[in-house]
Amino acid sequence: MSELKNDTFLRALMRQPVDYTPVWMMRQAGRYLPEYRATRGKAGDFLSLCKNTELACEVTLQPLERYPLDAAILFSDILTIPDAMGLGLYFETGEGPRFRKTVRSMADVEALPVVDGENDLTYVCDAVRAIRSALNGRVPLIGFSGSPWTLATYMVEGGGSKDHGRCKALAFDEPETMHALLDKLAQSVTAYLNDQIRAGAQAVQIFDTWGGALGHRAYQEFSLRYMKQIVDGLIKEHDGRAVPAILFTKNGGQWLESMADTGANALGLDWTTDIGAARKRVGDKVALQGNMDPAMLRASPKRIREEVATILAEYGSGVGHVFNLGHGITPEVDPEHAGAFINAVRELSPEYHR
Amino acid sequence: MSELKNDTFLRALMRQPVDYTPVWMMRQAGRYLPEYRATRGKAGDFLSLCKNTELACEVTLQPLERYPLDAAILFSDILTIPDAMGLGLYFETGEGPRFRKTVRSMADVEALPVVDGENDLTYVCDAVRAIRSALNGRVPLIGFSGSPWTLATYMVEGGGSKDHGRCKALAFDEPETMHALLDKLAQSVTAYLNDQIRAGAQAVQIFDTWGGALGHRAYQEFSLRYMKQIVDGLIKEHDGRAVPAILFTKNGGQWLESMADTGANALGLDWTTDIGAARKRVGDKVALQGNMDPAMLRASPKRIREEVATILAEYGSGVGHVFNLGHGITPEVDPEHAGAFINAVRELSPEYHR
Repeated sequence: MSELKNDTFLRALMRQPVDYTPVWMMRQAGRYLPEYRATRGKAGDFLSLCKNTELACEVTLQPLERYPLDAAILFSDILTIPDAMGLGLYFETGEGPRFRKTVRSMADVEALPVVDGENDLTYVCDAVRAIRSALNGRVPLIGFSGSPWTLATYMVEGGGSKDHGRCKALAFDEPETMHALLDKLAQSVTAYLNDQIRAGAQAVQIFDTWGGALGHRAYQEFSLRYMKQIVDGLIKEHDGRAVPAILFTKNGGQWLESMADTGANALGLDWTTDIGAARKRVGDKVALQGNMDPAMLRASPKRIREEVATILAEYGSGVGHVFNLGHGITPEVDPEHAGAFINAVRELSPEYHR
Repeated sequence: MSELKNDTFLRALMRQPVDYTPVWMMRQAGRYLPEYRATRGKAGDFLSLCKNTELACEVTLQPLERYPLDAAILFSDILTIPDAMGLGLYFETGEGPRFRKTVRSMADVEALPVVDGENDLTYVCDAVRAIRSALNGRVPLIGFSGSPWTLATYMVEGGGSKDHGRCKALAFDEPETMHALLDKLAQSVTAYLNDQIRAGAQAVQIFDTWGGALGHRAYQEFSLRYMKQIVDGLIKEHDGRAVPAILFTKNGGQWLESMADTGANALGLDWTTDIGAARKRVGDKVALQGNMDPAMLRASPKRIREEVATILAEYGSGVGHVFNLGHGITPEVDPEHAGAFINAVRELSPEYHR
């Protein structure tokens, strides 16, 4: 593997000194970019794009050609694992992800295999290898997975849902069924992320998109517990370098202390949380990643720059901040505004690292 | 007006001693009830039901016939004010609320009238009078309105939206336009709620459904500030009795301290917040209303009862708790499960008030 030329992102995740605050954007390879839409048009549907090594590599690198980003993130979907388990993922236009089969009983759970990356999601590991090779050490590559609870919501509901009512009812009424499902998912996510790491991912992020829809006790029992199980099982070092793990629970701002106790290296924050107050709460246990409202990218470049300045000041000086949005960038964003955001972080952050 | 026979709800909101924890459910007059669906079928569409005094009164009382609830809530919509301002509210099947006109510039804002209840939303005040008369003092009647920010999101977007991106962009880029809109809405909500109080509403709730989608600074500037303006302008006593005001910001669990400083009598909590921890945070400033996950009503009556017991224990003994769900009851709920919830609160709560 070629030597890493820009390790600012990895150093910040490990709370080591850096010259400026590194930045990347969740969903940075996405529909707001005309070149992404062109590549996706070639691939056909979204899932075909994920499964095409060459094109998945192409879209992963597109935002790096435009912007001085400090990390690339594997282009894939959070629902690859249930698809590999045999549920039959497909995308209905305007309807989001759907599964042909659902999981609603202990028998359904028992019928599911535990999956990994190299054997069951080879196309993902192939994409990781291709991207690492194409990156040629330019910036680190982030691997990722959905959290067990987040995957479970789609598997039980059969797709996206407004309130995850059916999945929650299963958790409330048959906790042993839900725990069996979540344990199988946690084993699979651990194997999947470790295979991504062996294939070349230099950091990993667990996307807990729907953990924040749980009550405060249910979050601990059905989401955080299994993310801790994953973090415990992750490869901590590869190729002579630490592989940091990032936990991101959307709407999880009230639970940062317990998230910091999982052993993860960093926590993702959405924009409802004051990142300065969050830093005081978690102390030196974890780095923090975030947290500009993605809707701010629809405002003027001048206003975006002001917001970046405010968030940098909220976090303050010293180690442990990775700048990001508080959720994925949306399709309506003008790519120039995304550029204004990234440039503002790059230009305004060095003074916090002197 | 006939004498109030059950004032437990009003006393709890004012942090006065009660014999048991009062309970009501957000959206208790709703689609989960077959009798509601029958009445709605007679009215035609949702808006016609809101505007028909007799039928609005009928559906308001339906849940009281089934359950020993401690309050009734006016049957209406949160979007009556923008409709009265001339935006043309309508409901697209499966699409939620829509407006024929949108508000996207200072000129649009300047063209909007300030509205009140008695002159501009007479059908709402008529419904309040009819319900008070039909209740005959059985339990208190709650009036309500959407919060200015919540109303603004629909007015700017032209309906519901996933991330309120257009409305937020207007707030970020043209704060003076947004503040002019929010001030006009706050004046209108104040007049509307005061007219509901004069017509017979004995408590009022402000539904801030989308304040929790704002960042922590933006929430203060664009949502909480205008809810405080409303609370400041509300009639505090009517007919010789205090009229308590309840603020409910969905996803507002991180901001309870500042919400408690508005002068509101009570705060609504969703289920992501530990109500015991919340009680410590707000001290004796406000009562707390909540906070069971509405999805729990899809679990078994036994499990529902356990959850009620846990939440009662979390809040603990003493004054200031109104039991409720953390959001509206959903159409899939079996009415018997809603009954199990209400009975559990009634049966398990007296020991916390000895």
